Amino acid sequence: MSCLEEKTINTEKIFSGNVISLQVDDVELPDGKHAKRELIKHPGAVAILAITDENKIVMVEQYRKAIERELVEIPAGKLEKNEEPKNCAKRELEEETGYVCESLEWLISFYTSPGFADEILHLYVAKGLKQKENAALPDEDEFVNLIELTLDEALQYIKNQRIYDAKTVLAIQYLQLQKAL
Amino acid sequence: MSCLEEKTINTEKIFSGNVISLQVDDVELPDGKHAKRELIKHPGAVAILAITDENKIVMVEQYRKAIERELVEIPAGKLEKNEEPKNCAKRELEEETGYVCESLEWLISFYTSPGFADEILHLYVAKGLKQKENAALPDEDEFVNLIELTLDEALQYIKNQRIYDAKTVLAIQYLQLQKAL
Repeated sequence: MSCLEEKTINTEKIFSGNVISLQVDDVELPDGKHAKRELIKHPGAVAILAITDENKIVMVEQYRKAIERELVEIPAGKLEKNEEPKNCAKRELEEETGYVCESLEWLISFYTSPGFADEILHLYVAKGLKQKENAALPDEDEFVNLIELTLDEALQYIKNQRIYDAKTVLAIQYLQLQKAL
Repeated sequence: MSCLEEKTINTEKIFSGNVISLQVDDVELPDGKHAKRELIKHPGAVAILAITDENKIVMVEQYRKAIERELVEIPAGKLEKNEEPKNCAKRELEEETGYVCESLEWLISFYTSPGFADEILHLYVAKGLKQKENAALPDEDEFVNLIELTLDEALQYIKNQRIYDAKTVLAIQYLQLQKAL
């Protein structure tokens, strides 16, 4: 198998923000020619497939500025500096939904957009949910509505495009597979 | 249900590249406070779940500079200006794999990273594959290896993290569901 590696010749840092940074790399291709790569650096994130004792999926509805619309998604959030993904999942679940959980198991990790971004997303399954009094609050610039859906309702939301993002579709497929296999 | 919209107060354009652009928006939150949003604009993309007559999944292995490693993925590529997603799917399948197809059906579309990017990905299923002589070539800065996997092999690749991206996992789960339901 041929080596496909692209060697970095130069990195131009364009922007460094609170969430993402952007750089343009000059790379040497396998044939020796050069090309430009526009790259986003992201701290990584977690998402939580949280299932209530009544077998409902806990979702949050929030406005996504990047696409200028509301989406219904499984709870998710980005890693803080040096934060363990599992601790982040516990924190985000509590902040976004008010739930704490008895069990929290890692399911799968995946890159969301490897063509231009290094964001990796770690997906967890949470069970044994209890609403916590005085739960940690979302970040002050985060506004979310809590929604709990059966699997059938979630499939309907996908059809209606109220659920419309990769991680949430992937998590719902996982539940369908659990039921079918 | 409360209105979650974030109104744009100001947009600062930071970077405009060949693939992505970056802007920082000042937004007004539902409570009247302000916040910053770092946003990536992307032209959108397609991916193709291509199944051979021998029931194998057509994959491409390529180097992903954003994550500095090779990944095995279903064929994919970004939309050219004013390009119909279905035409893009046909073109990318041919360029990356040399295959043309008898049937090409839309399966689902989804946002890949709605927290910071507007990239939407349209997933198609291609069947009736034939290797084309004098197939269109990949972009001159694209180097890919063609790999054809059974469903079981693909599941093993996910376990080994050679398959490690959202769209490919989602496409493979779809095939698993097709088989199970």
